[in-house]
Amino acid sequence: MTLKVALLGAGRIGKVHAKAVASTDGVELVAVADAFADAAAAIADKHGARVQSTAAIEDNADVDAVIICTPTDTHADLIEAFARSGKAVFCEKPIDLSVERVKTCLAVVERTGAVLMLGFNRRFDPHFQAVHAAIQKGRIGTVEMVQIVSRDPGPPPADYIKSSGGIFRDMTIHDFDMARYLLGEEIETVLATGSNLVDPQIGTLGDYDSVSVVLMTATGKHCTISNSRRATYGYDQRIEVLGSRGAISAENQRPVSIELATADGFQRPPLHDFFMTRYTEAYAAEIAAFVEAVAAGTEPSPGGDDGLNALLLAEAALKSVHEKRAVPMSEFA
Amino acid sequence: MTLKVALLGAGRIGKVHAKAVASTDGVELVAVADAFADAAAAIADKHGARVQSTAAIEDNADVDAVIICTPTDTHADLIEAFARSGKAVFCEKPIDLSVERVKTCLAVVERTGAVLMLGFNRRFDPHFQAVHAAIQKGRIGTVEMVQIVSRDPGPPPADYIKSSGGIFRDMTIHDFDMARYLLGEEIETVLATGSNLVDPQIGTLGDYDSVSVVLMTATGKHCTISNSRRATYGYDQRIEVLGSRGAISAENQRPVSIELATADGFQRPPLHDFFMTRYTEAYAAEIAAFVEAVAAGTEPSPGGDDGLNALLLAEAALKSVHEKRAVPMSEFA
Amino acid sequence: MTLKVALLGAGRIGKVHAKAVASTDGVELVAVADAFADAAAAIADKHGARVQSTAAIEDNADVDAVIICTPTDTHADLIEAFARSGKAVFCEKPIDLSVERVKTCLAVVERTGAVLMLGFNRRFDPHFQAVHAAIQKGRIGTVEMVQIVSRDPGPPPADYIKSSGGIFRDMTIHDFDMARYLLGEEIETVLATGSNLVDPQIGTLGDYDSVSVVLMTATGKHCTISNSRRATYGYDQRIEVLGSRGAISAENQRPVSIELATADGFQRPPLHDFFMTRYTEAYAAEIAAFVEAVAAGTEPSPGGDDGLNALLLAEAALKSVHEKRAVPMSEFA
Amino acid sequence: MTLKVALLGAGRIGKVHAKAVASTDGVELVAVADAFADAAAAIADKHGARVQSTAAIEDNADVDAVIICTPTDTHADLIEAFARSGKAVFCEKPIDLSVERVKTCLAVVERTGAVLMLGFNRRFDPHFQAVHAAIQKGRIGTVEMVQIVSRDPGPPPADYIKSSGGIFRDMTIHDFDMARYLLGEEIETVLATGSNLVDPQIGTLGDYDSVSVVLMTATGKHCTISNSRRATYGYDQRIEVLGSRGAISAENQRPVSIELATADGFQRPPLHDFFMTRYTEAYAAEIAAFVEAVAAGTEPSPGGDDGLNALLLAEAALKSVHEKRAVPMSEFA
Repeated sequence: MTLKVALLGAGRIGKVHAKAVASTDGVELVAVADAFADAAAAIADKHGARVQSTAAIEDNADVDAVIICTPTDTHADLIEAFARSGKAVFCEKPIDLSVERVKTCLAVVERTGAVLMLGFNRRFDPHFQAVHAAIQKGRIGTVEMVQIVSRDPGPPPADYIKSSGGIFRDMTIHDFDMARYLLGEEIETVLATGSNLVDPQIGTLGDYDSVSVVLMTATGKHCTISNSRRATYGYDQRIEVLGSRGAISAENQRPVSIELATADGFQRPPLHDFFMTRYTEAYAAEIAAFVEAVAAGTEPSPGGDDGLNALLLAEAALKSVHEKRAVPMSEFA
Repeated sequence: MTLKVALLGAGRIGKVHAKAVASTDGVELVAVADAFADAAAAIADKHGARVQSTAAIEDNADVDAVIICTPTDTHADLIEAFARSGKAVFCEKPIDLSVERVKTCLAVVERTGAVLMLGFNRRFDPHFQAVHAAIQKGRIGTVEMVQIVSRDPGPPPADYIKSSGGIFRDMTIHDFDMARYLLGEEIETVLATGSNLVDPQIGTLGDYDSVSVVLMTATGKHCTISNSRRATYGYDQRIEVLGSRGAISAENQRPVSIELATADGFQRPPLHDFFMTRYTEAYAAEIAAFVEAVAAGTEPSPGGDDGLNALLLAEAALKSVHEKRAVPMSEFA
Repeated sequence: MTLKVALLGAGRIGKVHAKAVASTDGVELVAVADAFADAAAAIADKHGARVQSTAAIEDNADVDAVIICTPTDTHADLIEAFARSGKAVFCEKPIDLSVERVKTCLAVVERTGAVLMLGFNRRFDPHFQAVHAAIQKGRIGTVEMVQIVSRDPGPPPADYIKSSGGIFRDMTIHDFDMARYLLGEEIETVLATGSNLVDPQIGTLGDYDSVSVVLMTATGKHCTISNSRRATYGYDQRIEVLGSRGAISAENQRPVSIELATADGFQRPPLHDFFMTRYTEAYAAEIAAFVEAVAAGTEPSPGGDDGLNALLLAEAALKSVHEKRAVPMSEFA
Repeated sequence: MTLKVALLGAGRIGKVHAKAVASTDGVELVAVADAFADAAAAIADKHGARVQSTAAIEDNADVDAVIICTPTDTHADLIEAFARSGKAVFCEKPIDLSVERVKTCLAVVERTGAVLMLGFNRRFDPHFQAVHAAIQKGRIGTVEMVQIVSRDPGPPPADYIKSSGGIFRDMTIHDFDMARYLLGEEIETVLATGSNLVDPQIGTLGDYDSVSVVLMTATGKHCTISNSRRATYGYDQRIEVLGSRGAISAENQRPVSIELATADGFQRPPLHDFFMTRYTEAYAAEIAAFVEAVAAGTEPSPGGDDGLNALLLAEAALKSVHEKRAVPMSEFA
């Protein structure tokens, strides 16, 4: 049996997901919707699907599931609409930048019993997955301290910053999710600092470009997160986990692994410079996981609650910076 | 304009090439031929092509090019047949295990003016390509000494050995081609030793499982090659090149790049255990290069002469082992 | 001209410093004092020095400088005594666990105009020095974010913990000094968390065994510090610094750099398991720096103020954990 | 009991050995001889020894052992003289450049029953020793193929080349000894090539600057050696050993292990640029091993036969280059 999916949003990430669908067994792209008809048609033609409006897809009995890649401010509405029309939903993170809106949306999902998976793609990176698997197998004993370093190659344009919800909701949110995934228990307290070292305009917009965060769980496990909007050497994405019996880490990925040795020393090329090339395998693997879960009738992971929890951690981090104190998550209960 | 290709041979490597075609722009799979109809049908169905006999494909005006993935002993006949029918030909290495047969085949290719590309896939590995590119850019000055280490995870079954032509024609041939690619000039002298350290049955069949080769060019550049049929830690594929101004190397590839640290030390997982996962990107890139060359009307590389030259080096290496002397390539002129 | 030094304290670290003196040009060990006469005699005999009481050394006109390696609670008294007797003083960190006592001691040092160098040995590790030198040369542009990971191979005995002053004053103090050294400006705010994950007895004693700290300077530079009393894989000592133009890091040191590859993967031996073997070169280099500064009549670095500042950061970190807030250093002015 | 040694030769390597003696327990430097009295005095003064003539040292009943660091052409005579006077002898390699002279010298050593250790320092490098130890412990199963890469930072001056005996006797000889040490059985056949790629003057002097060698034992184990007189990135010294159950390797040593990451990529400093800084620990360890063997009355290793065997391999390699054939060691029996 083949799962029939529709793609909502034919932009950059939409193309990536369409390609992932094409290379995955047991799934077929049948419809594409986008405000720009040409963009929708380009993807539809390449993969033998047809262009339809969002409304038509809702009514299309031939569609089992949708992949939502539209702008963030449409996510919650679309999730609700397709939950109500009985389709399984894969949605790019975040559900919404407002905690209240996320909660009302998830209430609809719960009422309708709809299947919802959220696109925290990094959980599907093979290297991070191998770290997680080693933890699960007890290779490092009990998890104690997680270190996450996550830095973009360069700052985004001001327009992006304006609608991003700020660095904690836009960038650190991936690390908040990763921290929860690796720590294996919920965060109890959040400490954070933020400053502007990269681009003064980001500060003018009320946002930070350099943040350090410490998370702590009820049992005393720690996670430190270091984010910067600029790493000249490429997309810096590392995690390491210390446990009672050892440590495990995932190093950075490189487009080519060569080394040049000269009188100046030993030189390797920079890291990937773009999240899409860095996480190519992760994007394909998350779609495969979605397809598998829907086919098997199991609950896909990460789900709506993971989206909400990561967003609440972003809220707490922002509060910690503003109020210069350790913020207990109980304030968000 | 889209290039229309037919696939001859629907086995393991045929599937890899079909997938490469599907992910490459400007090319479409239109026909598949295989002695096993089911195997041909499986690939054809998946990619929207149809099953045809080899003879029918020869006559199919809709086919621009063929990809030959059939058993080695059919390569030369098929190259000749499709060269005569005016199709561009991509053929898995080797053309044939007999130097004489290769020469008569290449004579047909030359007479017909057919386009022929040979599947020395390693030239398209992104890491080895980056090494080659650095050399071309003069980053290490003049090339002086090349070191190639190439080891299989484990020995093949006896049946494979019997029809392989021996380790030099079957395994070292890739390294001979790589040596020519990196040295940038022809080999003048070959020294080789061989022994049986891995599997006594290989020796019984008159073949070696462990060989060391030294190649030298007219200007005194060296290349050493170290081959073994067994490396318990995975598919060991490394090259390094010393030049007058520095050195450049490509390290081994790993499925995941994690590291576990415990009281026993620091441990990384084994290498890839299969050439197809190790060279996934190379297989896709060589098909893209073939498509690009045919589309542009340029001569694809590596071509028939590269196949012949690598085979002659294998002959010389075998002669060197048998006669315990440095064998000049002039003996094969 | 040869500098004549006396060694106060003939224990483990005293032996290390005696050996450093013996291998350094321009300095000679002339006297050794220790409450245990045998320990003093063993070092004195080996290096051609004589055993004397502390009082006798104070009066010994032949002694130019002293190296203080006695227990922590004697440091401040000895510094004052030898400052008054006009000897140059090298003292193991810390001056004292009490901020007040450190201040009165430094007042004496200032009044007497004595030369005082403090044994923050890590500043003299060749790898960390190379990191510092690269920063000074502008290789990474402006420093923005420092990450320090510092973990002991295993927890010390309870008796040690009792008199240690707690993890921030005993262990993190090295990292506070390193942070100041690398950030190049003073810390303005301290955030810290602590928990007990390694040894419950440490918690019973009112101390922590796992701490995470975030430091921030007035210009918004960050430093994160991750400490644990247990790393099964050895003495984990890493620093990395992100700057506006790049990053620089120093990796862990290993007793041997070999790698074993088997079917289980690639394995390297554990790190050093002891701070003395890890920092062998640093101990020798700090004594050489002390000798050089005294000989040249320049002020040695790190000095008394560096000791005080690191201790104040430890106080602030403890306060941050207790009061669950960001602690401004202005509270310690 | 303390071993009393005399140093013959107060040059560069003599100073290194004097320092090694000073840092080793159970040994004391008592006399130094050198044609240049000032050089001898400098070392003698620093370490509390006295200057004596070689003849006087022969007669000095207080001297138990000698360390010979004089020019190569004096080695054999000195070994014989001190063997006859009953001193234990440590001699820098080689015994002599002439096989005949080495044989007559070793005959004297045998007749006198003298203790002789030869300075193949690389056997005492802690990293290479760890490789050897892992092999002995069976960590890689049966040894099959050894790869040695050994390259100097730059070519020596013409005067050095003239009296060096040629690259095989001067440089590769270390690798021949290492091959024997690691293979654990004698070499049966030698294949070699040589060329001039670095410095044409070396060719004018009848020597090579770039050589590749393949050694094979009776049981079919291989060793490849790659030598060049120039590696712009530093002193390149690597070994790796493939066995039936795995492989083990020792990587290059670096003065500092830092890494700079910028938009140009990741850069580490060059390797050591001098054999004395690269092999500092090895020089100290070989003297310690000599002292230990003499004290224990056991035969030190490597001994005279190791020196002879390495020299014979150099002869065979030269013959292989000249006669363009595999040379069996039986020709040197």
